[in-house]
Amino acid sequence: MEDRVLVVGGGTIGLATGFELVRQGTPVTLFERNDAGRGTSWQAAGMLAPDAEIGFEELSLYGLNRESLRRWPDFARRVEAASGMDVDYRDEGTLIVADDRDSAEALRRLFEFQEEQGLDVDWLTGEEAREIEPFLAPRLTAAIFCPSDHQVDNRRFLEATRTAFEAEGGTLHEQTPVEVVQPDPDAPAVVTADGERVEGGQVLVAAGVWSRDLDGLTPEAQPPVRPVKGQMLQLRRKTPFDLQHVVRGPDAYLAPKSDGRIVMGATSEEMGFDTTVTAGGLYDLLEGGWEVVPGIYDLPVDETWAGLRPASRDHAPLLGRTGAPGVCMATGHYRHGILLTPVTAEEMARLLRTGETSTWLEPFSPRRFSGTQSSNVSP
Amino acid sequence: MEDRVLVVGGGTIGLATGFELVRQGTPVTLFERNDAGRGTSWQAAGMLAPDAEIGFEELSLYGLNRESLRRWPDFARRVEAASGMDVDYRDEGTLIVADDRDSAEALRRLFEFQEEQGLDVDWLTGEEAREIEPFLAPRLTAAIFCPSDHQVDNRRFLEATRTAFEAEGGTLHEQTPVEVVQPDPDAPAVVTADGERVEGGQVLVAAGVWSRDLDGLTPEAQPPVRPVKGQMLQLRRKTPFDLQHVVRGPDAYLAPKSDGRIVMGATSEEMGFDTTVTAGGLYDLLEGGWEVVPGIYDLPVDETWAGLRPASRDHAPLLGRTGAPGVCMATGHYRHGILLTPVTAEEMARLLRTGETSTWLEPFSPRRFSGTQSSNVSP
Repeated sequence: MEDRVLVVGGGTIGLATGFELVRQGTPVTLFERNDAGRGTSWQAAGMLAPDAEIGFEELSLYGLNRESLRRWPDFARRVEAASGMDVDYRDEGTLIVADDRDSAEALRRLFEFQEEQGLDVDWLTGEEAREIEPFLAPRLTAAIFCPSDHQVDNRRFLEATRTAFEAEGGTLHEQTPVEVVQPDPDAPAVVTADGERVEGGQVLVAAGVWSRDLDGLTPEAQPPVRPVKGQMLQLRRKTPFDLQHVVRGPDAYLAPKSDGRIVMGATSEEMGFDTTVTAGGLYDLLEGGWEVVPGIYDLPVDETWAGLRPASRDHAPLLGRTGAPGVCMATGHYRHGILLTPVTAEEMARLLRTGETSTWLEPFSPRRFSGTQSSNVSP
Repeated sequence: MEDRVLVVGGGTIGLATGFELVRQGTPVTLFERNDAGRGTSWQAAGMLAPDAEIGFEELSLYGLNRESLRRWPDFARRVEAASGMDVDYRDEGTLIVADDRDSAEALRRLFEFQEEQGLDVDWLTGEEAREIEPFLAPRLTAAIFCPSDHQVDNRRFLEATRTAFEAEGGTLHEQTPVEVVQPDPDAPAVVTADGERVEGGQVLVAAGVWSRDLDGLTPEAQPPVRPVKGQMLQLRRKTPFDLQHVVRGPDAYLAPKSDGRIVMGATSEEMGFDTTVTAGGLYDLLEGGWEVVPGIYDLPVDETWAGLRPASRDHAPLLGRTGAPGVCMATGHYRHGILLTPVTAEEMARLLRTGETSTWLEPFSPRRFSGTQSSNVSP
């Protein structure tokens, strides 16, 4: 039996899982519709922030997020060693700030919930926050410091992971959209837009928001992911302005990278596959950023863009075997694609190599949607 | 004697004056450092609005602005006929709007001044203004309607003028910076960055903010122009949103073009030759636009940029003979380069062809600065 894994999708999940597989000796062919690492993962901000986001998700997802963050430093080192590239992993921590009475009250509720859950977080006055991050707005009254919430330069990480994947012997086909997946217990296959059929031992669908567009899967096996648009912009640091921590305000966050980029985001819009940058999107981000870090006012705006987060119906990822024989899935990572990369790559590689589904993956089986979904389709 | 005119600078002034000269039979060679029509003139908004701006300038400049606007329709038709292109001349008029008590009071003072000067303007309530422009903000309380203030699509106009100039036999050298001007009463010359020396009958410097950088002129003959940075952005019209008039709010203006572009501007910054687009610049423009036309919120942002207005010490243009023999100048048009193009082109062509300085040009002689300037330089 062919043991080659065919990966559909060259974002952070496809590249990192491919890398894990090839470095452990499993051959991989990866198909990417455009350029590898230049889709949704490239458009992210690279925040690794389970603690800051705990209020917004199920606790089971928090557990997975936390576990993935725990694995991040080792995973980053492995990618750096295999690629010879630096991914700019930064552990200064995250500051969540409040800029008025309402947001201070919401911040207090978040802090109390974080403490109940035993998280390592600190409540700071505005003055204390400015001691560790001097460019915070003078009028900020309170902050939560999350020292365990780190960040990475996702663009560097993607280039490094792609290099590492190829360095370990992975085969990468770019500009090669897959249109059809052909399930089969022994020899599943993919068919590209050019009509080429490629057979392997297993197929891994890791195509983010495009995962649902693949032909050949039964409705039950199709992942219920939809795009959630996020508009973003990038500033360029300019002396004397500086920022060391990720800063999360009520309406925007700022993630400073070591190369001088400051990534700001993000709107959250249900607009289908629309990726236009709008007047209102930019306005809200600039206002939200300026209110918490007014020193951004004079910084150059380098780039603006919109990305599409792959969101499932419960906003948790789809990780594991599907109802289609020979086809696994790792998609639907929503806001957490970069954060969840190590645990996804390692556990999916284990599943694909050994057939063993770890307890980390079990709650996130793609098959949890099949019941609901089959009731929505005609008999 | 050689009657060829050497024009330095391929913006709206250089191209249009060159066009006037060649169509009347005077040979012209035009040197442009980059691509013709793609500098400051391309970055403008194309508003032809002497009435709206009357409060901000000397009355002598208002007279020149008004005269140039009077000539615009004929000039546009001439360029359109020679180029076979449409320049999108629009005469719906301009609305100046107020969005709070302070700006309404300032608007009232402007209106009274306009009436004193005998301008054809109307005072509208917010409701009346929304009758003619339904997408104005509901909370606007007052507006001045300036039916005589028109606009043109400056980008189309530049492409048409460039085409017309060449169609009439003008010689255009792009990517050809001029570094030196060599004054001479009979055979002045220019020297390009490549070291080529070209001799002509007269030289016309129309290089906008770069006019001051030319070597070879005495300090007295150097035009005292400095760059005044203006940040801008472009939206794209999307149904059902529509806008017919130029709208000028307290903090931003919107100029809708017939091809669906909506040009928004502009900051006014003394930053030297810096052309970075900043977080604060975009923020202020988006806020200023949204406050007067909230429907822009969902429109795509197509493009952002910063242009450099060539401002003289008194903010009026420099038009006519310089102290350097054989060298004329048409620069320093500041906010009014597009508006002042017809009167500048026609009167400068007349001066270059006949030696006659019209009464339109007299108040704007470049030599008005020589006295002051010579007292600033060492003996």
